[in-house]
Amino acid sequence: MFKKILIANRGEIALRIIRTCREMGIKTVAVYSTADRDSLHVRFADEAVCIGPPPSRQSYLNIPSIISAAEVTSADAIHPGYGFLSENAEFSQICTDYGIKFIGATAEQINAMGDKATAKATMRAAGVPVIPGSEGLLESVEEGKRLAADMGYPVIVKATAGGGGRGMRIIKSELEFEKAWLDAKMESGAAFGNDGLYLEKYVEEPRHIEIQIVGDQYGKVCHLSERDCSIQRRHQKLVEETPSPVVSSELRERMGEAAIKGASAIGYEGAGTVEFLVDKHGDFYFMEMNTRIQVEHPITEEVTDFDLIKEQIKVAAGAPISGKNYTPKIYAMECRINAEDPANGFRPSPGKITNLHFPGGHGIRIDSHVYSGYTIPPNYDSMIAKLIVSGQSREEVITRMKRALQEVVIEGIKTTIPFHIKLMDDPKFQSGEFTTSFLDGFDFSTLK
Amino acid sequence: MFKKILIANRGEIALRIIRTCREMGIKTVAVYSTADRDSLHVRFADEAVCIGPPPSRQSYLNIPSIISAAEVTSADAIHPGYGFLSENAEFSQICTDYGIKFIGATAEQINAMGDKATAKATMRAAGVPVIPGSEGLLESVEEGKRLAADMGYPVIVKATAGGGGRGMRIIKSELEFEKAWLDAKMESGAAFGNDGLYLEKYVEEPRHIEIQIVGDQYGKVCHLSERDCSIQRRHQKLVEETPSPVVSSELRERMGEAAIKGASAIGYEGAGTVEFLVDKHGDFYFMEMNTRIQVEHPITEEVTDFDLIKEQIKVAAGAPISGKNYTPKIYAMECRINAEDPANGFRPSPGKITNLHFPGGHGIRIDSHVYSGYTIPPNYDSMIAKLIVSGQSREEVITRMKRALQEVVIEGIKTTIPFHIKLMDDPKFQSGEFTTSFLDGFDFSTLK
Repeated sequence: MFKKILIANRGEIALRIIRTCREMGIKTVAVYSTADRDSLHVRFADEAVCIGPPPSRQSYLNIPSIISAAEVTSADAIHPGYGFLSENAEFSQICTDYGIKFIGATAEQINAMGDKATAKATMRAAGVPVIPGSEGLLESVEEGKRLAADMGYPVIVKATAGGGGRGMRIIKSELEFEKAWLDAKMESGAAFGNDGLYLEKYVEEPRHIEIQIVGDQYGKVCHLSERDCSIQRRHQKLVEETPSPVVSSELRERMGEAAIKGASAIGYEGAGTVEFLVDKHGDFYFMEMNTRIQVEHPITEEVTDFDLIKEQIKVAAGAPISGKNYTPKIYAMECRINAEDPANGFRPSPGKITNLHFPGGHGIRIDSHVYSGYTIPPNYDSMIAKLIVSGQSREEVITRMKRALQEVVIEGIKTTIPFHIKLMDDPKFQSGEFTTSFLDGFDFSTLK
Repeated sequence: MFKKILIANRGEIALRIIRTCREMGIKTVAVYSTADRDSLHVRFADEAVCIGPPPSRQSYLNIPSIISAAEVTSADAIHPGYGFLSENAEFSQICTDYGIKFIGATAEQINAMGDKATAKATMRAAGVPVIPGSEGLLESVEEGKRLAADMGYPVIVKATAGGGGRGMRIIKSELEFEKAWLDAKMESGAAFGNDGLYLEKYVEEPRHIEIQIVGDQYGKVCHLSERDCSIQRRHQKLVEETPSPVVSSELRERMGEAAIKGASAIGYEGAGTVEFLVDKHGDFYFMEMNTRIQVEHPITEEVTDFDLIKEQIKVAAGAPISGKNYTPKIYAMECRINAEDPANGFRPSPGKITNLHFPGGHGIRIDSHVYSGYTIPPNYDSMIAKLIVSGQSREEVITRMKRALQEVVIEGIKTTIPFHIKLMDDPKFQSGEFTTSFLDGFDFSTLK
């Protein structure tokens, strides 16, 4: 087992990883930017190394600084968390070259899944259902129009290097095609330094449902069932739950098998997530695979009792997995509490938290790096806490979530809590019958 | 279902009950003494009524004040929590007479179990194993000595109205008998206004293991497995866990059946606990039955996913139970965090909490009524929080508990946390092989 793990991340996920390391008797090294001096992950780690100032390019994305920190502290493994360098093939390779175990996917696996067009081709070859679309990148507007006419509108163009909705356009008819194409190309070039686009059939009334998988170094992969992440605003997940209200045990079985097939095709090792779109007929299509731990992993932990970070560390150290698949025994839901003003377009609301009180009791889990007196720096993601609730039924989870949300006290900044409370009261949300565009019709203006 | 429940209690259990009521859509009324104005249970209830000053006799034990508060606020039920009036037959009866549902046992059931000698006789008649001892109260020292000689020393005398170790003496030989008898008689007379004593064979190397049961109004009783509460200091529980390291599934089955038999014998309705002593041979003996919710109920909730307060409310409202018994699916442990100085004889340490931070993450539950800036009044029980940890194995729970204990920040007062951390590191505790006298040999002096 590893003796010391460096956590190449910040915020709640850094603290999350430190917690499991402590439980496993593994020493931890935190790295931090000058903006994060007062973060709890710095306080709770056994050692902490400042790796530079914001922006992230100069610190959390600065590979030489992080490798130096690992060398100086004699860390024998690096956990990258999510975001930042977690899906950076070069970083994974450099860690390997320096004899430091990267707790995540290999460079080859990251490359195989990092480029969406390549990922789709790999999955199609492995027999995983994939949305009809272009074979790789589009060469020209004309090729795009021809393909779209073949598969029928609506279609969607996406940036091959994209994410978070950038470089993405839904096109409802040929008339809109050229403008949407040029907009997406410009946006993706500017955002990712790569303006490659691909085309897909646009799945109507889709739900975003993903399968958590874990693979070991011996070719075994198992799944830990699904997470439904359909509650999104501008492709940003706000609420996740498991089991999904629309996934039968038969569908879970089929999706789980597909995810395992896909991950096995690239010899996947570690924790990963295979994201699918599920349409109104219960057909599902591979979207992408995330070769890292995800923000919403705790809901899977709550319903399976697994510590997924512990699993990641164990398989990275060479432990075999049982190969058994796990289905939810109870229900769980996560609300992302962001320092944003939901009544004003979710505008970031950094600043000092002058008073803080989190809820407690049965079925409540809090993952957070903030505390009373903490100042949220303006430089990073605005998520300040994850409120995770579990219960014996979806209804119990929703009522418990509302109770817990109402108990939270966060003074000094705006948060997404008023949105979450309103969502829990929404009859359509309560019914479980909604799609990824549910929030397009949501009235945010009455939130205060 | 009830529309409004008055909670005749304070502190964490009052908050615990409010939380479940909120989740069930039931309005709540808090009652509070003038010393508890700033308690969270007052803040989170829908209504709050001041019922008098400390001591408890003038407020939390003041039946007319509480009934008035229920009448004034039109509460249709009263939840008594634990302690205070929770096992007061008169109060239960008065609630019934006023048409207010008492969420607990009936006066008859409380009487049947409130007097320990009667309780033992009832259980023996129902076929539940009972420790050999006097049939009812002892008439004289001479009768006690004669019985003790018959069953063999060591024996124990106990106050029939007692609890918490008061009015209780272990007697190792006939020479010690008379003094111990007189001491116990005086102590119980002073503490409980009742100096009735009974005698029992003293069980050597015992463990305190109790069975959680739930009964409905239709005569059905089920059990939710055991809690091991052997970690006690002067008969005060400090740590509880489930499953017990010494209870096999066969023993659980037998103890569960005995508990159900005993509860069924008195037509028990609601949540209750049947406490047993288990000796080194795996034989078990009925000690007492608590006709109320217990402090340590959350560990059962964590391993069965049941909300026991919800179950109490539901059966009080006439809902039937399934009658199915539940066994732990995972492991859970509770540490009682008291405002006491464990290095100085657990001396109470009331005062202002100047800084507070509770741990979070996977497998952590906090039940607490305190917050940063809260002043602990000197008038009540010193428990300020329950830290409940669950995990896939006892070992995982212990390492997680230690991690969580180390994360707690409570400034301004002394707490039992240093004791708990030392306990988690203790090889004998880790081995699971200990008795109720384990803490007699524990070195508290090194705690700081």
